[in-house]
Amino acid sequence: MGCEEASACNNAMIRVAVLGAGRIGKIHARNVAAHPGCRLIAVADPLKAAARALASSLGAQASADPAAVLSRDDVDAVIIGTPTDTHVDFILEGARRGKAVLCEKPIDLDISRADHAVAEVERLGARVMIAFNRRFDPSAAAMKRAIDAGEIGEVRQVIITSRDPEPPPPGYTGSGGVFRDMTIHDFDMARFLLGEEPVEVLAMGNALIDPETPEGYDTLMVMLRTASGRQCHINNYRQAVYGYDQRFEVLGSRGLLMNENLRPTTLRRWSGERTEAKDPLLYFFLERYAEAYRLELDAFVAALDAGNAMPVTARDGRAALRLADAALESAQTARAIKV
Amino acid sequence: MGCEEASACNNAMIRVAVLGAGRIGKIHARNVAAHPGCRLIAVADPLKAAARALASSLGAQASADPAAVLSRDDVDAVIIGTPTDTHVDFILEGARRGKAVLCEKPIDLDISRADHAVAEVERLGARVMIAFNRRFDPSAAAMKRAIDAGEIGEVRQVIITSRDPEPPPPGYTGSGGVFRDMTIHDFDMARFLLGEEPVEVLAMGNALIDPETPEGYDTLMVMLRTASGRQCHINNYRQAVYGYDQRFEVLGSRGLLMNENLRPTTLRRWSGERTEAKDPLLYFFLERYAEAYRLELDAFVAALDAGNAMPVTARDGRAALRLADAALESAQTARAIKV
Amino acid sequence: MGCEEASACNNAMIRVAVLGAGRIGKIHARNVAAHPGCRLIAVADPLKAAARALASSLGAQASADPAAVLSRDDVDAVIIGTPTDTHVDFILEGARRGKAVLCEKPIDLDISRADHAVAEVERLGARVMIAFNRRFDPSAAAMKRAIDAGEIGEVRQVIITSRDPEPPPPGYTGSGGVFRDMTIHDFDMARFLLGEEPVEVLAMGNALIDPETPEGYDTLMVMLRTASGRQCHINNYRQAVYGYDQRFEVLGSRGLLMNENLRPTTLRRWSGERTEAKDPLLYFFLERYAEAYRLELDAFVAALDAGNAMPVTARDGRAALRLADAALESAQTARAIKV
Amino acid sequence: MGCEEASACNNAMIRVAVLGAGRIGKIHARNVAAHPGCRLIAVADPLKAAARALASSLGAQASADPAAVLSRDDVDAVIIGTPTDTHVDFILEGARRGKAVLCEKPIDLDISRADHAVAEVERLGARVMIAFNRRFDPSAAAMKRAIDAGEIGEVRQVIITSRDPEPPPPGYTGSGGVFRDMTIHDFDMARFLLGEEPVEVLAMGNALIDPETPEGYDTLMVMLRTASGRQCHINNYRQAVYGYDQRFEVLGSRGLLMNENLRPTTLRRWSGERTEAKDPLLYFFLERYAEAYRLELDAFVAALDAGNAMPVTARDGRAALRLADAALESAQTARAIKV
Repeated sequence: MGCEEASACNNAMIRVAVLGAGRIGKIHARNVAAHPGCRLIAVADPLKAAARALASSLGAQASADPAAVLSRDDVDAVIIGTPTDTHVDFILEGARRGKAVLCEKPIDLDISRADHAVAEVERLGARVMIAFNRRFDPSAAAMKRAIDAGEIGEVRQVIITSRDPEPPPPGYTGSGGVFRDMTIHDFDMARFLLGEEPVEVLAMGNALIDPETPEGYDTLMVMLRTASGRQCHINNYRQAVYGYDQRFEVLGSRGLLMNENLRPTTLRRWSGERTEAKDPLLYFFLERYAEAYRLELDAFVAALDAGNAMPVTARDGRAALRLADAALESAQTARAIKV
Repeated sequence: MGCEEASACNNAMIRVAVLGAGRIGKIHARNVAAHPGCRLIAVADPLKAAARALASSLGAQASADPAAVLSRDDVDAVIIGTPTDTHVDFILEGARRGKAVLCEKPIDLDISRADHAVAEVERLGARVMIAFNRRFDPSAAAMKRAIDAGEIGEVRQVIITSRDPEPPPPGYTGSGGVFRDMTIHDFDMARFLLGEEPVEVLAMGNALIDPETPEGYDTLMVMLRTASGRQCHINNYRQAVYGYDQRFEVLGSRGLLMNENLRPTTLRRWSGERTEAKDPLLYFFLERYAEAYRLELDAFVAALDAGNAMPVTARDGRAALRLADAALESAQTARAIKV
Repeated sequence: MGCEEASACNNAMIRVAVLGAGRIGKIHARNVAAHPGCRLIAVADPLKAAARALASSLGAQASADPAAVLSRDDVDAVIIGTPTDTHVDFILEGARRGKAVLCEKPIDLDISRADHAVAEVERLGARVMIAFNRRFDPSAAAMKRAIDAGEIGEVRQVIITSRDPEPPPPGYTGSGGVFRDMTIHDFDMARFLLGEEPVEVLAMGNALIDPETPEGYDTLMVMLRTASGRQCHINNYRQAVYGYDQRFEVLGSRGLLMNENLRPTTLRRWSGERTEAKDPLLYFFLERYAEAYRLELDAFVAALDAGNAMPVTARDGRAALRLADAALESAQTARAIKV
Repeated sequence: MGCEEASACNNAMIRVAVLGAGRIGKIHARNVAAHPGCRLIAVADPLKAAARALASSLGAQASADPAAVLSRDDVDAVIIGTPTDTHVDFILEGARRGKAVLCEKPIDLDISRADHAVAEVERLGARVMIAFNRRFDPSAAAMKRAIDAGEIGEVRQVIITSRDPEPPPPGYTGSGGVFRDMTIHDFDMARFLLGEEPVEVLAMGNALIDPETPEGYDTLMVMLRTASGRQCHINNYRQAVYGYDQRFEVLGSRGLLMNENLRPTTLRRWSGERTEAKDPLLYFFLERYAEAYRLELDAFVAALDAGNAMPVTARDGRAALRLADAALESAQTARAIKV
């Protein structure tokens, strides 16, 4: 990554459009603008003011029409950060026009629409990557490399603790519920770390923070099992007062791997009351996974440059959604769901 | 605890007999002998040589007949460390003779026998304590005090990681399976930390270490839920290469509490390969919970001295067993079991 | 920091030239180019190829003549990353032409030249900042704020551990010795954290890594004392195999503050041999202080924007050099040197 | 350590008298009473009530006359925990009577008396051990073994942080000053970890906690150097609010070793304000080094049993005192003192 000779780079630069100028669109647009292998062509958002503000600060064009931007000839790749119910349409439109696509999760809230999208993408041989950003976190990636290198022998149990600092804002609807909105990241991480497909899901959910939450649950636990008997536990909570808690642990027959949360500083305070007191965690995903978003873009660009397969496929996006559906069913029926 | 004036102490000393001279009997007998509020009267074990070796090293009498020792007039309290199938008989015999009883877990492998024992103990008003030693670990006890003091607000989720360094020896049968033998400690800890009774159990078990294990499973995960929706996850594994892993974590509405494992030293090694590398964990429960066993005896003695209720009752022993039964049923039927 | 409306920003943008295209010049030039409040005008280096490579990758002009760039009317500020013996001349030339200056340490190797520069800068009222980057590390800055807020009461002792991963390359001469080249950063940090001027210096130095080191010593310890009796210990070593070790600790009458080293990931590895094993430290200052360099530029820009005093002055640069001279004298004479 | 067959043990039991029934005498007397290889014969203290209280709780005889106890035929070994000015007399009287001696530090406050004692002990071939308890702390001992095993290559720098939670009580005089009373432990640890004799001492001391302290200083730093150039830094402070701070760090050519402080529990608290907050440290040396005192007695007994050389000799006690004298002189003269 990176090139010192600008002239050499320009020839190979990938021309990118970002659809959606919300908080996730901003992250992607800025990373594209700063990436030595990309040029940010345009930002599109029906909220024209948002598109304009973001585009102008980055020297790109603004548009209120994502579909129009998607069809521009001078765009090689699109990053989709629009509302979930538009994902499949933009993915398929991009795929048909030969654009490389990096799309935010989830692929859709409806598994049959997701199935349709996967089938179409595969039929077209399109280059579509789903943005499960956590895989690109340096510690998660190092954990995966250590597993794949056999450092801990056979994987036995994966423990995923994933807690948000606060629930979605009141107006946040259409998420499809907490399993499809929040846990879906953990389902992807479970698949990533287990190294095998889960075939059985058990879940329980409660609404302890807000009994009226439109998401159904805000406090939940899940167990997954693969065909060979590898197990995974996930716990989620929507209001961890100490910050965005992201811990992954993999037990193997020959060892254990753990990551650690990130904080704004490394300061440790000692007093007559407490020792080794650290800062609260980085607030939320934008701060916690800032580096992961950059490395995710890197991986996308690198795969395009090399003509390699996408590091996270539409099929991966569909698989996580299927687990979310199964977890919801398990939580509602109090029994294991086969996947 | 402790008394400096031996003469004053002798009057109030509790005279204790230990039944069973195996590894757990040894722990108890040595703690009794070293405790300023107790006098070790006798050690009884059908294996007379074992009883004799232990008793003589501690200046106590040896017997091959636990029942006979239990009926001695000069014995105020008995500690039962004999095989599980003798527990109920010794508890009830002790209770009827007015002895205080400290009995190893589980109370029995059969819930109806446990029910019978609890009913009889309560009818007699007997002083019977079940030896769930982990509650007395300084860190677990401090965690409980912090919860009860409201430090973390309402309890939301409890995470229990509990892994043995190696499976039971080949000849170890009659344990009633891993849920009743190993997880039972975690069920007690779950009840202790949740602060409410679990009413629902989901479990999955696999035999990944030894597909032929007579215990049924050696790799397992459990989820519990209380009536108000508090959740608990337990994971167990029988062969953690890095030592006896005992971690407890309680998430509340206002904070989080975690404990840490213990190691023989605090040494941290840094090299060109790794930094902050610590020792493997203390090997197993005898090392890890050495202090807890001492404090458990302290709590037993203190309750007797003060005439207070036992800190862990026969009813507590029964409750953990009930959860173990439910977990086994859940693992076999792949559905939630109501308790 | 940062501005979303590019048009509004352009008016206030600070036009910056970077003198020197070596590794430190590259850091500064890239940070300038990415900073929303700056525009990189030119990069100058007598090694024209280096200037050109760096400038072209960042869309700036290249020059082989730093002095010429310094006199350009379209340059508001210069960042000096050239060899030490040019610092004073460029500082003074910039100061006389009304440029704001951010100059790498040390101000000079000769205290009388440094005195002259300070006097001239102050006479001119010039805006000159010395680039002691560590003050801007988020953890060091948070430590300073906690001290200033009175969190630990009166400062008593400061402990600075500062070890490089490897000695300077064989050709690296003209550094003025290890005290003026390496420890000078720690002298600045000592002044920053002590909150009072050191008045006494004791030092010892040895050449344990390379008995022939042109720097005089590669293994050294220093003690400082302020007039009120606050104490500081510094230890330096030129070849820490585990990476660039940067630890600061401040003991106060009411508490203690410590920072921690940084690593590329948070992964912790557990095996039968070791637990909690972390990665080696980030290799060296470019990696470890990447964020500090960005925040240093921020502080420079913010002070210029606000018309405030420079956060680190030429006088600060001179003070650190004076301590380095005293330490060298102490190491040579085996007695305390008054400052 | 330990023997299960009491009868076999009794023959070989070492009969011990403890001189001094203050806090350190209590520690030793209790450890002797609990040690399977020792029998506590008597406790002697001119404060007869103290001797009686301690002795009776442990089933030993009490005496107000240490000298008389020292001469008893049924005493094999004496542990000296009396005031410093009696150490040499009791050591020599014990040595002449063929008793094994374990004596608290310092050997004396006067180097010439210490020299005399060492010479006499060596002339008599007496078995005299000086109680530098920290060497027997499991982590310090493991650190030493790792150094000796070559794990970190050549030792380069030793950093010793050693801070008390509070100054000695007002009536505490005759300590010979902080270097001979407090730092002397660190001088011994420095010798232990450096693996070479220090030949040069630099020190600075201040009275920041109590300007009127009879000890001279309460805040101090020391630098030591061995003939081959290994360096050691020691910092001391008499009033660390967070507890008894005992950290040792050894930098070698191939790695780094660090220990960690001890706390009463492993609990970590997370809230909206702070994460990973741990308990304050164990209060002071009696708590922090409880295990070290037991292992020190073990080492003494083991050496006697095996007929081996004492693990810490009178000569070691003298060497630490010499460094303390040199540090005091350095602090007073502001120059390096050769040893």
